[in-house]
Amino acid sequence: MSLLKLISFASRRVFTDLAVRPQRAALGFSGFLGLRERNTNLPNYRTMATTNTLSSGVKLSVENMNQNVVKLQYDVRGPVVLRAGDIEQELKKGVQKPFKRVIRANIGDAHAMGQQPITFIRQVLSMVANPELIESSNMPKDAKDRARDILCGMLGYSAGSYTMSCGVELIRKHVAKFIEARDGIKSDYNNVCLITGATTGIKMILEMICGELGGKTSAVMVPIPQYPLYSATLVEYGLGQVGYFLDEDHNWGLSLEELERAYSEGSQCSAIRAIVIINPGNPTGQVLTRKNIEDVIKFAYKHKLLLLADEVYQHNVYAEGCKFFSFKKVMTEMGPPYSTEQELASFMSISKGYMGECGLRGGWMELLNFDPIVQAHLYKALSAILCPTSLGQAAVDCVAKPPKEGDPSYELWLTEKNCVLGSLKERSVMIYETFKNMKGFKCNVVQGAMYAFPRIELPQKAIEAAKAARRPPDVFYAYRLLEETGICVVPGSGFGQRPNTYHFRTTILPQPEMLTEMLNIFQKFHQKFCDEYA
Amino acid sequence: MSLLKLISFASRRVFTDLAVRPQRAALGFSGFLGLRERNTNLPNYRTMATTNTLSSGVKLSVENMNQNVVKLQYDVRGPVVLRAGDIEQELKKGVQKPFKRVIRANIGDAHAMGQQPITFIRQVLSMVANPELIESSNMPKDAKDRARDILCGMLGYSAGSYTMSCGVELIRKHVAKFIEARDGIKSDYNNVCLITGATTGIKMILEMICGELGGKTSAVMVPIPQYPLYSATLVEYGLGQVGYFLDEDHNWGLSLEELERAYSEGSQCSAIRAIVIINPGNPTGQVLTRKNIEDVIKFAYKHKLLLLADEVYQHNVYAEGCKFFSFKKVMTEMGPPYSTEQELASFMSISKGYMGECGLRGGWMELLNFDPIVQAHLYKALSAILCPTSLGQAAVDCVAKPPKEGDPSYELWLTEKNCVLGSLKERSVMIYETFKNMKGFKCNVVQGAMYAFPRIELPQKAIEAAKAARRPPDVFYAYRLLEETGICVVPGSGFGQRPNTYHFRTTILPQPEMLTEMLNIFQKFHQKFCDEYA
Repeated sequence: MSLLKLISFASRRVFTDLAVRPQRAALGFSGFLGLRERNTNLPNYRTMATTNTLSSGVKLSVENMNQNVVKLQYDVRGPVVLRAGDIEQELKKGVQKPFKRVIRANIGDAHAMGQQPITFIRQVLSMVANPELIESSNMPKDAKDRARDILCGMLGYSAGSYTMSCGVELIRKHVAKFIEARDGIKSDYNNVCLITGATTGIKMILEMICGELGGKTSAVMVPIPQYPLYSATLVEYGLGQVGYFLDEDHNWGLSLEELERAYSEGSQCSAIRAIVIINPGNPTGQVLTRKNIEDVIKFAYKHKLLLLADEVYQHNVYAEGCKFFSFKKVMTEMGPPYSTEQELASFMSISKGYMGECGLRGGWMELLNFDPIVQAHLYKALSAILCPTSLGQAAVDCVAKPPKEGDPSYELWLTEKNCVLGSLKERSVMIYETFKNMKGFKCNVVQGAMYAFPRIELPQKAIEAAKAARRPPDVFYAYRLLEETGICVVPGSGFGQRPNTYHFRTTILPQPEMLTEMLNIFQKFHQKFCDEYA
Repeated sequence: MSLLKLISFASRRVFTDLAVRPQRAALGFSGFLGLRERNTNLPNYRTMATTNTLSSGVKLSVENMNQNVVKLQYDVRGPVVLRAGDIEQELKKGVQKPFKRVIRANIGDAHAMGQQPITFIRQVLSMVANPELIESSNMPKDAKDRARDILCGMLGYSAGSYTMSCGVELIRKHVAKFIEARDGIKSDYNNVCLITGATTGIKMILEMICGELGGKTSAVMVPIPQYPLYSATLVEYGLGQVGYFLDEDHNWGLSLEELERAYSEGSQCSAIRAIVIINPGNPTGQVLTRKNIEDVIKFAYKHKLLLLADEVYQHNVYAEGCKFFSFKKVMTEMGPPYSTEQELASFMSISKGYMGECGLRGGWMELLNFDPIVQAHLYKALSAILCPTSLGQAAVDCVAKPPKEGDPSYELWLTEKNCVLGSLKERSVMIYETFKNMKGFKCNVVQGAMYAFPRIELPQKAIEAAKAARRPPDVFYAYRLLEETGICVVPGSGFGQRPNTYHFRTTILPQPEMLTEMLNIFQKFHQKFCDEYA
C-alpha cells in the first residue's frame, strides 16, 4: 500500500472510529478500545509499561500518545467532509456519480463558495505586501495611505518583521476605535489583542483555566448545540464540558433556568470556571436579545464565571427586529458590579461578516476586568508564539477602520458590503422557507450567522439501518445525502443535540443559483430517503 | 493608576519575578510565592478551596490560573526586551540618555534590522492578495504565473478561503520537490505539513507526547543552551526537560557521551520520549558534522526517541568547511533500521534563511516513519485550528520553488539572495573577531544561524552587585548594557548555560554600519563595566 493510501486509510479509520464512538460508548466500548481492536500489530503500551523495555523508550503509537489528542473530534472537517474530498477526486478521475459536483455546505468558507473579496481590503494587502505598488500602481489614495500607515507601524517598514505579540499598536488602536463606535463605550487598546483568527484567542483563554480547583477538574459551560472548536479544545486541554441546552422550540433561545440546571448538575463533579456564549449562534443562527444577554451576565457574575463571548458573526444579522448587542456594551451599561468586576473575553474574526477572509487568519479579542497580573501572564504566553500574521493584521485594520464617507474607496466598499450582506440575508430566508416546509423537517428562522440547523425526523427503519451500519442516524443520513447528491453537510452529532433528535448544519453560503439547485436536490433526496425507509 | 500603567506595571512585575526566579529558587522561594508576597489583596485559592465559597466559583487569579502558564518563560521577548521598548518610548518623549537609539540585537528579526525583502516573494504575494494585479501590473511573467498557480490551488481562486489543514496541495508538492533537490532523496508530500511558522509545528509535535508513561512524566531532551521556545513549551505542556550540554570548548559540539549521560540521569525520574536538535544552532551558531548527526540518530534509535530536527537555519551556513546536512538525508543514507524505523519531524521556516519573512508566519514540517494512525490523529488535531495562513503559504511556495535559471526573475532573485547571505557571513565574522579579542570574552566561530553566544567573565564584585540587585549576574549585565548603551541582547540564562558561567545572545542582524557602531560601543561599555567592578 502506498504511503498516501496508508495515511488516507489511517485517517478514515481514525475518523470512522470517532464517528461511531457515540454508538460504541453506548455499547460499552471506548473509541480507544475501538482503535485497539483493529490494530493488534501496534505495541501494547500498557503491557510495555510493566516491563523493563520501557526504560529504552517506546515508539510513538496511538496507545502511548497524548490520549486527549486521540479523543479530540472536529466534525466541521471530519469524516463526512473527508469523504466529500474523496468524491471530488473520484469525479475528477471520471468515476460516474448521480451528480456532477460536490456542494460544500459544511464550513463557513465564503470565498470558497464564490463570494468575492472586498476590493479595499485586497488593495491595501497587496500594497503592504509589496510597498513598491504604493507609488507605481493606480490604486485609490485612501488605500495607498492606509498601506503606508500600516507599514509605518511595522518595524523596518516591512510585513516581514515580527510585530508585537499582541499585534501592531496602530491596528490595536483602530480596533479599539471600532469597538467604541459599535458600542458607544470607551475601549482601551491595551485590552485588545490581535490573534491568528478567533481560534487562537479562544484556545489561549481556555488554556488559562486548565487545571484543578478544590480537587475538581476545571470545566466550561458550552451551549448544545455548539461550535466544535469548543468541545475539541476542552478535550485537548483536559477540561470538563458542561453543556447547557439551547431551546429549539423557542428559536434556539437561552433560558436562565437551563443555565442554572446545567450549572447545578455540572458543578457536582467539576469546578466550572467559564461559560461560552456564541452570538449570533453557530450552528443555530439565533441572535440573543438584550434581556438574554443581561441574564447571562447576571448568571456569570453570580457564579464567578469567566465569560467567553464568541461574537465573530456580529456583522451577520438578517432577521427583522434582531439586533446585535455586544456583551461588553450590555455589561457596561448594566453598571457596577457587572461593569467593573465581571471578567469578559470577546472574540472577533475577519473570517466571517461581510469579509469572509478565512484564509488570512486574522482576528482580535478584547479582555475586560481581567486581573492585570493574569493578563500579563497571558500576554507573556502569547509572546512565545511570537506574533499573529502581519498580513492578517493588515486585513484586520481594514475591517476595524473601513473607508468612511467621502473617501475615494467608500462607495465601492459600501456597495460590496451591502451586496454580500443583502445576498446572505436572502439566502438565509431561502433556506429557512425551504426546510420549514419540508415534511419531517423543523427549521428555525436563521436570524444571523451563516448556518441553518434543521431538525429531521427519521423513519424508524432508517434508524435501524443506521445502527446496522454502526453509524449514528444523523451521520448515516449525512453520508447518504453526500453519496447520492454530492451535498456535504455536517451531522448534528458533531455539534451536540438532545438525545434521540437528529439535525444537520448547512451553511447559507452557496451562491443563490447553486443554493436553489441544492435545495431542490435536497428535497428530492429526502423524499426518496423517507420512502425507502417508510 | 491608568489601565495601561496597571498592565504595564503587572507585566514588569511578572517578568521581574521571572527574571529573579533562579535566585529565589536558590533562596528557597518559588516564583509563585514571590508573586504572592506582593499580592495580599488577591483571593487565596488554597484557603478558598477548603471553604464553601468555592462552589460559587472564583475570579481568575494568578493563584488559580493554569500554573504552567505562570511558570512559562520566553526571554527572547522577556523583561530586558520589554525594558528596551520602554526606553524607546522615553527617547521619543525626549528623555535624555547616553545614546540616541536602541539597537535590537535580541531577536532574529531581519527585516526589522533593515534587511530588504526578496522582490520575487513580495511580487507573488501582492498578486495572490490582489489577483487583479496579475493582468494590470507590469510584474515579471514568472511571478504572474506563480501567483496564478497558487490561486488555482485555493478554493474559489481566493486567498480568503480556508486551505486544507496541512496546506495547499500544490505548495506541499513544491516543498517535497525542494526537499528532494536538497537531499537527493525522495519526499512524499503527504508527509509535508505547512504550518504557521515552525513554532506551531514544534508545539503540535510536542503536544503529541504529553502525558505519562509507566507512571513517569514524559520528558524531552533539549540542548543547553537551547532556543527558549522549547523550554517554554515543555513547561506549558507539563512535559519534563532533560538538558544535554553542548561543548563550548569544542565550538558548541555535541558529544555522544554527554547525550548518554543526560539520558541516563534524566530517565531516573522521567520517561524520555523525544530529543530536540537545533542545526545550525540557536543560540550557539554551530553547524553539525555528518558524523555528529549519525551519532544522534543512532542514539535516538537506541532509546526509541522521537527526533525533532529544528533546521530553520538551513540556508544560514557561513564558515569554511561547514555544510548543512539534513537529518532526513543522513538518516536515509544510513539505511535500515534507521531509514525505515526512526521517527523524525523536521522543521523549516520562512522567517530565517535569506528571506527573513518572520511576520508572514510560514513554514513546514516533514514527518518520517510516523505510525500512520498517529499521523492521522495529528492531522485531525490540526484540522481543529483550520489552516495555516494562506499568504504565509504563498510565501512558502516561493521559497520552496524559487525562480530557476532562465526565468525572468532569476537574476534578481539570485543577486538578492547572495547579497543577504554574503552580508550575513561578513557580519558573522565581524562579531566573532571582535568578541574573541575582547578581554574576558570567549566567543566561538559563528558557523551558521544568526547569533553569537559569547561567554563573559564577570568580576566578582559585579556578581555581588547583581546579587544585591536580586538579578542573575548575566541579567544584571544585560540590563546595564541596555541602560547605558541602548544595545539590547538576551541574557544567557534565558537559553540555559552551565552553572556559574555567563553568556548573552546577540544576533548578527544589525546592518554592517550599525553593527560596527554596536561593537565599538560594546567594547567601551565592557571596559568601563570591568573597571567599575575591578
